[in-house]
Amino acid sequence: MRHRLSLEEYVSGILAQNRFVLSQAITLVESQLAQDNELALQVIDRLLPYTGKSYRIGITGVPGVGKSTFIEAFGLYLIGQGKKLAVLAIDPSSQRSRGSIMGDKTRMATLSTLSAAYIRPSPSGTSLGGVSRKTREAMLLCEAAGFDVVLIETVGVGQSETAVAQMTDFFLLLMLAGAGDELQGIKKGIMEMADLVAITKADEGNELKAERAKATYQNSLMFFPAHAGGWFPPVLTCSAVQGTGLDQIWEQLQNYQIQTQTNGFWQHKRQQQQTEWLHDTIKQLLEEQFYQNPSIKNLLETTEKQVQEGKQHATQAAADLVKLFLSP
Amino acid sequence: MRHRLSLEEYVSGILAQNRFVLSQAITLVESQLAQDNELALQVIDRLLPYTGKSYRIGITGVPGVGKSTFIEAFGLYLIGQGKKLAVLAIDPSSQRSRGSIMGDKTRMATLSTLSAAYIRPSPSGTSLGGVSRKTREAMLLCEAAGFDVVLIETVGVGQSETAVAQMTDFFLLLMLAGAGDELQGIKKGIMEMADLVAITKADEGNELKAERAKATYQNSLMFFPAHAGGWFPPVLTCSAVQGTGLDQIWEQLQNYQIQTQTNGFWQHKRQQQQTEWLHDTIKQLLEEQFYQNPSIKNLLETTEKQVQEGKQHATQAAADLVKLFLSP
Repeated sequence: MRHRLSLEEYVSGILAQNRFVLSQAITLVESQLAQDNELALQVIDRLLPYTGKSYRIGITGVPGVGKSTFIEAFGLYLIGQGKKLAVLAIDPSSQRSRGSIMGDKTRMATLSTLSAAYIRPSPSGTSLGGVSRKTREAMLLCEAAGFDVVLIETVGVGQSETAVAQMTDFFLLLMLAGAGDELQGIKKGIMEMADLVAITKADEGNELKAERAKATYQNSLMFFPAHAGGWFPPVLTCSAVQGTGLDQIWEQLQNYQIQTQTNGFWQHKRQQQQTEWLHDTIKQLLEEQFYQNPSIKNLLETTEKQVQEGKQHATQAAADLVKLFLSP
Repeated sequence: MRHRLSLEEYVSGILAQNRFVLSQAITLVESQLAQDNELALQVIDRLLPYTGKSYRIGITGVPGVGKSTFIEAFGLYLIGQGKKLAVLAIDPSSQRSRGSIMGDKTRMATLSTLSAAYIRPSPSGTSLGGVSRKTREAMLLCEAAGFDVVLIETVGVGQSETAVAQMTDFFLLLMLAGAGDELQGIKKGIMEMADLVAITKADEGNELKAERAKATYQNSLMFFPAHAGGWFPPVLTCSAVQGTGLDQIWEQLQNYQIQTQTNGFWQHKRQQQQTEWLHDTIKQLLEEQFYQNPSIKNLLETTEKQVQEGKQHATQAAADLVKLFLSP
């Protein structure tokens, strides 16, 4: 069904904020075909001067925390503030187990119909590295298409949180006012990455529980040092259903931006992320090229078998294969 | 000081269980020099038929849990059972921060004097991949030198636990009978990897605390599914000072071996580990070769700068560098 546009059509379409062309371009980025990737790189290269102006926000929380409902409500709030919002998802594991986390068509029902919002399901892919790269590039395309805020969503149970934190300016952790052991559901490392913890479902009748959870998290966060950039992650409560607390969250996001843009950390972090992105991509391309190499493909199965059976030493076998790859 | 032996000297020395030659060979494995690595590979290649016969045990616990004291006591117990024991450490982070975790000469004071024990400090290195590879190779050398049990030790706060679990048959987690929130000190992912949890310092007067901690951990472990291989991780208490509980730990280790060797999981896991080892090494060698390449070295700094300043797209820059590397 999809037909490929020309480089010029992609570039001018995205700059004209044409959502259809944006979607086509993201599909191009996500393609497995080498020629598509080549064209995608050209598109991004041309659009590079128009990127970097959005607020990149990572958002995570365990299943059941009400992530979709929160994003729907927070998105509508932002649009009410005159913002244009893109929502991207990163979750390689979903491909293998439960289908894309964004697959549910009923998710974000209102948000998805608004022209100021753009929602894109998780790209397909088996490696986190591959999915990250595609998500980062989709983010750049969204920025060039004029979106002020890019929300990058992940599930909060796997390893993709680090990937999301590495491509965003601010990391928002959603937590549930739960039954006692609030800290158990989410990995400690994720707590440490959070720039803000938002207790969801602080709905009428549930306020006390939410306030108690807030106190617990505030206590836990006190044991972590201040983030680089001098930011102390606040804990807030909100109700997506009642629309409460969203303004305070946005206020804190703005405070963060002002503080870190003033002390230079915002720019520093982005530069660091660019460097990481470069090195991540190098590693990934090296592996791709290696495993796609015909001589390697030919030999790999036999080598694996010999190594498994202890007939060849893994390090030696690896050295032989890499040598063959580099000097055929 | 060190002088290099010949291939034959290394091979025959290790097979003759000469500890001096074993140490020299491990130093060769750990060397940064390409020619040393080449020779090390030849040594391992020759010794490969004599490897694989030990019980490979990973052991971890947060600082303060009494790891050294436990290993000393458990090691002496094993030697009493007629075993020969090698202790290796894996901890890349220690190089950067606190010095090697094995650096303290007073650690394992008795054990280190016995001819049935061999203790080797953590190899130097900055990347976890590099340290893992060296530790795995040191393990093979210890096996060829006739050690029945190889303990691989790590700190329990970083990422090296996964690396240790990937190279061992059994993963032993030491936990302290602590003040209430026992589960906070260690990452949840590490709990899930444990094949046995041992509560340390269940010394006289501290038994109640230890029993309470035991109940807590048993409860927590109940929420995890049985390990592959059908093993349910037991929780035991022990006192290294009084020498109690060590026999039960060893009994469980033997049960595990019998059960998984009978159902085939032991062999299956080792084969899988060999395959992972192969692919890990491939990735690592590819990166090493890339970053050591003179043309890449020349260009990298400029490229990083351009990417940081947004003048070049990271993916494009990575693709250009990889292309240059592969077809100079």
